[in-house]
Amino acid sequence: MSATGLFISIEGGEGAGKSTVIAALQEALAATGREVVLTREPGGTPEGEAIRALLLDPANSLAAETELLLMFASRAQLVRQLIRPALARGAVVVADRFTDASFAYQGGGRGLDMGRIAELERWAAGIKPDLTLLLDVGVAQGLARARARGGEPDRIEREREDFFERVRAVYLARAAAEPARFRVVDASQPVQAVREAVQAALAGWLGSRP
Amino acid sequence: MSATGLFISIEGGEGAGKSTVIAALQEALAATGREVVLTREPGGTPEGEAIRALLLDPANSLAAETELLLMFASRAQLVRQLIRPALARGAVVVADRFTDASFAYQGGGRGLDMGRIAELERWAAGIKPDLTLLLDVGVAQGLARARARGGEPDRIEREREDFFERVRAVYLARAAAEPARFRVVDASQPVQAVREAVQAALAGWLGSRP
Repeated sequence: MSATGLFISIEGGEGAGKSTVIAALQEALAATGREVVLTREPGGTPEGEAIRALLLDPANSLAAETELLLMFASRAQLVRQLIRPALARGAVVVADRFTDASFAYQGGGRGLDMGRIAELERWAAGIKPDLTLLLDVGVAQGLARARARGGEPDRIEREREDFFERVRAVYLARAAAEPARFRVVDASQPVQAVREAVQAALAGWLGSRP
Repeated sequence: MSATGLFISIEGGEGAGKSTVIAALQEALAATGREVVLTREPGGTPEGEAIRALLLDPANSLAAETELLLMFASRAQLVRQLIRPALARGAVVVADRFTDASFAYQGGGRGLDMGRIAELERWAAGIKPDLTLLLDVGVAQGLARARARGGEPDRIEREREDFFERVRAVYLARAAAEPARFRVVDASQPVQAVREAVQAALAGWLGSRP
């Protein structure tokens, strides 16, 4: 939990519509008059963006352990350089992915031990989002959307469909295990319906806080 | 321990003369007729060299945790892509630094928890050198040598003298705790004497093996 600010992460597989949702969130949050800080993972700092380039370059052949350590290297930097200072001054931080993504992609997708990821979460990240919006969409529909966007797929987008099925299953299991933190949004709907569902989920979550 | 090959790491602070020693070792080992693979840390693979550039660039301001995770990301890649395959085919691998350097620099120098580093060693590296040659030299003498080489100091070379005192103390403590693996060489001597001491240490260690 953050001290005074509010930390929201947006999670979901390929083609879930995270960018659209982040724009909708920014609009809803700006209306509250609070400072809103948008960031993304991996990346979000100059050092983190350099790590992102390494992680996504299809020319690199990374061991699963290397991938996990690079994700947490980027995250350790992001937490200390951007997220914690923003929360300390009372801002709302909206992160395009956070630690849940490592459980889903490196744990579920790559099969790395979940206990190791939890251990890294404790000391390298050290914070959890207050609210996590999980945009859930079937793998085939998500991949079709991602492909329709065009462009060259990055190193992770090149994975096979069963990889993304495992990613989705871990995301849903984590949401079920932490219902107070997660809100699952049906991202198979048309864009406008997803935006509205996200704004409703945010309003409901804010209303439920003590 | 390696399966069939031999894994030797060279450790020491700034200006300890690692490059000179590695050349001497290569000469001594080549005479045995075995394949010799030289590598360095951080780096040693294309992905690891990109991580090295990030770690050493004085323009980067890295959190201690980020630095540690990047070191192990490079190491995880090096072990899987280069060291393990080389040892499996019976080669002698000579590494310019390995995990002891993380205990010394990120543990001693930066003050990170040694237990965390040991945990990363177990799963991200997963192997230990058969023999570690520690080139020991007083901090002031080592730094004076490093400066005499010229060139711009990298991000880590810019640290203060007390940082390097802590690095040296951890190296010496590790050598004392694992006498079967470590050989400490007095690197304050003139180059030729250090070369001879290293070759004698190698011969003595090889002769002591069952």
